[in-house]
Amino acid sequence: MVVLRAIMTFPITDRTKLKRLPKRGHFDRETVYGILDEGFICHIGFVVDGHPVVIPTGYARVDDKLYIHGSQASRMLRTLAGGIDACVTVTLLDGLVLARSAFHHSMNYRSVVVFGQAMLVEDPEEKMSALVALSEQIIRGRWNDVREPTDLEMKLTTVLSLTLEEASAKIRTGPPLDDEEDYSLPMWAGVIPLKLAAGEPVNDPRLPDGVPVPDYASNYKRPTS
Amino acid sequence: MVVLRAIMTFPITDRTKLKRLPKRGHFDRETVYGILDEGFICHIGFVVDGHPVVIPTGYARVDDKLYIHGSQASRMLRTLAGGIDACVTVTLLDGLVLARSAFHHSMNYRSVVVFGQAMLVEDPEEKMSALVALSEQIIRGRWNDVREPTDLEMKLTTVLSLTLEEASAKIRTGPPLDDEEDYSLPMWAGVIPLKLAAGEPVNDPRLPDGVPVPDYASNYKRPTS
Repeated sequence: MVVLRAIMTFPITDRTKLKRLPKRGHFDRETVYGILDEGFICHIGFVVDGHPVVIPTGYARVDDKLYIHGSQASRMLRTLAGGIDACVTVTLLDGLVLARSAFHHSMNYRSVVVFGQAMLVEDPEEKMSALVALSEQIIRGRWNDVREPTDLEMKLTTVLSLTLEEASAKIRTGPPLDDEEDYSLPMWAGVIPLKLAAGEPVNDPRLPDGVPVPDYASNYKRPTS
Repeated sequence: MVVLRAIMTFPITDRTKLKRLPKRGHFDRETVYGILDEGFICHIGFVVDGHPVVIPTGYARVDDKLYIHGSQASRMLRTLAGGIDACVTVTLLDGLVLARSAFHHSMNYRSVVVFGQAMLVEDPEEKMSALVALSEQIIRGRWNDVREPTDLEMKLTTVLSLTLEEASAKIRTGPPLDDEEDYSLPMWAGVIPLKLAAGEPVNDPRLPDGVPVPDYASNYKRPTS
């Protein structure tokens, strides 16, 4: 059972332990993976000359690995490929929590913070699978339709992996929690749900007439965790 | 004119200069402020024991300052209040860009990266104005309705400010840009617009009957830049 626990949950470390509101913390892989799978944009933090830098980028999760990619010329990827410490944060915003008191206003959200070091993916097979995963994480089904990368494009693309070893989720859900004496106040209180929503696909101006919009574009949705 | 330029634009520094795709970079305050005003969640990066940490949190912009706030007990706020280097990144995701080639897939987005040091806001008047701004940035009009903070709640709340001195925006808009020979390929290409959308407000379970949902909740929208 100890082995099973080690597989199914992340260890609680000094930097993933929640000092305040510990009930918002989650360390099981199912919860962490669910959030990572619903998102597709992360914010990666790393240190350059002693200064923190935070950059948004797409990502994919495959089993216990996160992949990111970009141009071979990208400063971020070249820096991270050196195996320096990184922090990858994914945030899903679920709602605004309007309490009676200013003090108890909050947000509903699900976030994951991952600590680790990125590694250059050099194996061509893993690199190609990672690119497929990155595409599928963002829009499932698209890869089947695209013109696949040429050898030159593969060379111009850097893929990094980061093994999920130290990670945690933080979740707030539900209605506002006001002080008992404030519940009788007359103002509205509740939650405004928020989510990332897709609009009508916009055809490329150079698209020939009669090319239908694929279902994955006209009904774009995120998988829900 | 030199003075005016200094006021209206941010200096291009080694860490805000875009090495690749320089046309995506913007350094004028109008563009940077527009993005900061449309968003309300940032990802703050800072360094703890040599390791980067990235945490999502709400923020407000007032003139050339960013404010963040939270519990006096927050590890993040106590760390940042020490005046260490921080990087604050705000990302607005505008769309998925589906090209004919896998290689040229992209996203439309507007992001701002700010470098600086946070300072504890100790002046009670500035602190209260910052709390009003934080509330208004997230949901305009709400502050008028809420029970305002007590002295104790003010004491339990930490507010930090960060002056906008070194900042830049990065923007991608428009259709995919494919290799010329790929334009004749038969698959769909274009943009799937994305935005943060609000759902129907959910009443607090303890809300008395007959309290109407305010317009700022039933018609929640972000200001557009």
